[in-house]
Amino acid sequence: MRKYQVISTDDHAVEPPDLWQKRLPAKFKEHGPKVVRSQDGTDRWTIAGEPQGRSAWLSVRAGRYDSFPRNWDEVPAAIKDPKERTKDMDRDGVDAHVLFPNTAGGIAGQSLAKVRDLEASLACVQVYNTWLAQEFCAAAPDRLVPLCILPIWDLKAAVAELQRARKLGHKGLVLSSAPDQALGLPHLNERHWDPLWAAAQDLGMPVNIHILTGQLVPNPWKGFGPQTDFALRSVWNVSAHAIVIADLLFSGILERFPRLQFVSVESGIGWVPYCLEMADYHAERYQVRKEGVLTMRPSEYFRRQVFASFWLEKVGPEIREAVGLDNIVWESDYPHPTSTFPNSREYIERAFKGVSEQDRHHVLVENAVRLFQIGAA
Amino acid sequence: MRKYQVISTDDHAVEPPDLWQKRLPAKFKEHGPKVVRSQDGTDRWTIAGEPQGRSAWLSVRAGRYDSFPRNWDEVPAAIKDPKERTKDMDRDGVDAHVLFPNTAGGIAGQSLAKVRDLEASLACVQVYNTWLAQEFCAAAPDRLVPLCILPIWDLKAAVAELQRARKLGHKGLVLSSAPDQALGLPHLNERHWDPLWAAAQDLGMPVNIHILTGQLVPNPWKGFGPQTDFALRSVWNVSAHAIVIADLLFSGILERFPRLQFVSVESGIGWVPYCLEMADYHAERYQVRKEGVLTMRPSEYFRRQVFASFWLEKVGPEIREAVGLDNIVWESDYPHPTSTFPNSREYIERAFKGVSEQDRHHVLVENAVRLFQIGAA
Repeated sequence: MRKYQVISTDDHAVEPPDLWQKRLPAKFKEHGPKVVRSQDGTDRWTIAGEPQGRSAWLSVRAGRYDSFPRNWDEVPAAIKDPKERTKDMDRDGVDAHVLFPNTAGGIAGQSLAKVRDLEASLACVQVYNTWLAQEFCAAAPDRLVPLCILPIWDLKAAVAELQRARKLGHKGLVLSSAPDQALGLPHLNERHWDPLWAAAQDLGMPVNIHILTGQLVPNPWKGFGPQTDFALRSVWNVSAHAIVIADLLFSGILERFPRLQFVSVESGIGWVPYCLEMADYHAERYQVRKEGVLTMRPSEYFRRQVFASFWLEKVGPEIREAVGLDNIVWESDYPHPTSTFPNSREYIERAFKGVSEQDRHHVLVENAVRLFQIGAA
Repeated sequence: MRKYQVISTDDHAVEPPDLWQKRLPAKFKEHGPKVVRSQDGTDRWTIAGEPQGRSAWLSVRAGRYDSFPRNWDEVPAAIKDPKERTKDMDRDGVDAHVLFPNTAGGIAGQSLAKVRDLEASLACVQVYNTWLAQEFCAAAPDRLVPLCILPIWDLKAAVAELQRARKLGHKGLVLSSAPDQALGLPHLNERHWDPLWAAAQDLGMPVNIHILTGQLVPNPWKGFGPQTDFALRSVWNVSAHAIVIADLLFSGILERFPRLQFVSVESGIGWVPYCLEMADYHAERYQVRKEGVLTMRPSEYFRRQVFASFWLEKVGPEIREAVGLDNIVWESDYPHPTSTFPNSREYIERAFKGVSEQDRHHVLVENAVRLFQIGAA
């Protein structure tokens, strides 16, 4: 087993332009996402003929928000080729990347719901999951960790796909933070989802809820410049995610599925202390337990079953204690604009200033190994 | 001048049932809020005939959410009479209360916009402001500190009323966090509001933005029990407010009005560190200054011009440093359900464990005295 020093728990695998068109069964090809190049040379993903976002390769240069490759020809080799990617990882001092989708089907694969044919949408999900585990991550299996997406618009198929994905080597699943808002499906708190929670718990597959996978941020003021808008949304996404996780703590899901694990992804960790402090205070004050759903304090569910990932924040002693040393994981968010790449070493030094080597290793390696069973089959 | 030990910067003055009907000029009486008692003996506020909330006296027993006086006859004397109130304050170890409205016109007076006649709505605002300063607070002027509400749906009248209120002895103004969402008015970031900011700055009147005065929390899941719903909303309100304050930091208002002060009320302080850390990181990364609105980091505007109030949270060294010792004020939220009353001493001890006497006094007294010019004319 590789001797890990730094494991990043939130990075993105960029779907190649021919991903679906090459691998889908012939009868589904017309439904699958495809890249269309416009006259000015810009590639865009389309699903069912509908363009997705303003560019297919918008977020594939770490640290850059103001410039992006127009088309696949301009995309850096480290994005296209997993072997090349590991060179970037070496340069950044990061041993492993846990991989989420990029933009083709949304960060939680939720946009694949737009594929009109139900069977075809399942085939699209399967193409992604098979490609990620058996092609992309197979190039460096000790360094690239796959997370699967699911056709959550067909719960029975989603559970079956989770089981298939586990066999392919996936180490967790990616889920929209608000399928009700994003897709018009039942709210995550509904019993509707219990078969999914049961399967994920049985398979030891943590549920990764990434920011930006629901629609919880209110419509912002239209007067901001594009850069300010981008920066402000980066703060808002965290606050919106705190709302999602507080909801989870009160939902009863963690009570009913005590071994199910959730990861709050790209949310940072700085909001966790106020969230738990406020949740415990008001749960006690308003005697929430009398309603028969929870038997513990919200913070106790968090400590038992929730992880949160950070990249830029400092991990001072109050944060470590308030969040829980066992509940913090690190992420580099390669290759997105907010990523610490190629300066992750520097950010890590800054984050862990004054922290013991043991605690640092616990957060940077041990928690991720335990959560994603890294190194296990 | 009274020797203050503890100043609470967020409490509520409960509007008596005859407030408007007794004091409004005859021609406006029909437009003013009135209390209507139903057959089961429950009082409710009505504006323009429309009932406001499920009870007029819903939040007038500190610490109690599950029981409230049905009607004014059952309301405790300490709510009705400011002299009696000071006995509760003595019991709680609190020297001064800074007073927001209760529920008749909304916590920021925003519901008075429902008064159909424009002149009548201004008269309603004036009745409240005059009553609060000259009757209610006049009973204990060194202990009860009035904040005015404004008819923000008529900006010229709002500025005039702010000037009048200052002369009456008001020490700040209360403003909705989202007049666009709450009332269909321009977003706070619009230049529309500049005359108000200019007047507040000139008069040295801090702008108090209380949680629950916009509509920023998304619609929750309907399946929660009422107690759980109440507790969870208490956490969400904070996250929603972090969105409001982040917006303010990027808005340019603090750049254009460098002596204008804002108070983030009943938001707690635990979210401030992540908000500032994330805001600074992304403002720099996305080169926000190039867009010509901001000249400093978001955290620098916060330190210069924003205060945040807390009640239950612990004020550890990281929080003190990250928020800024000069930017924290304390609140008891008397007489609302979340209030620390009658155990404020205990909560304060817990909050300031390990904090020097000097820093504690700075937060509990000096910041509030400076912010609200307490003791000045």
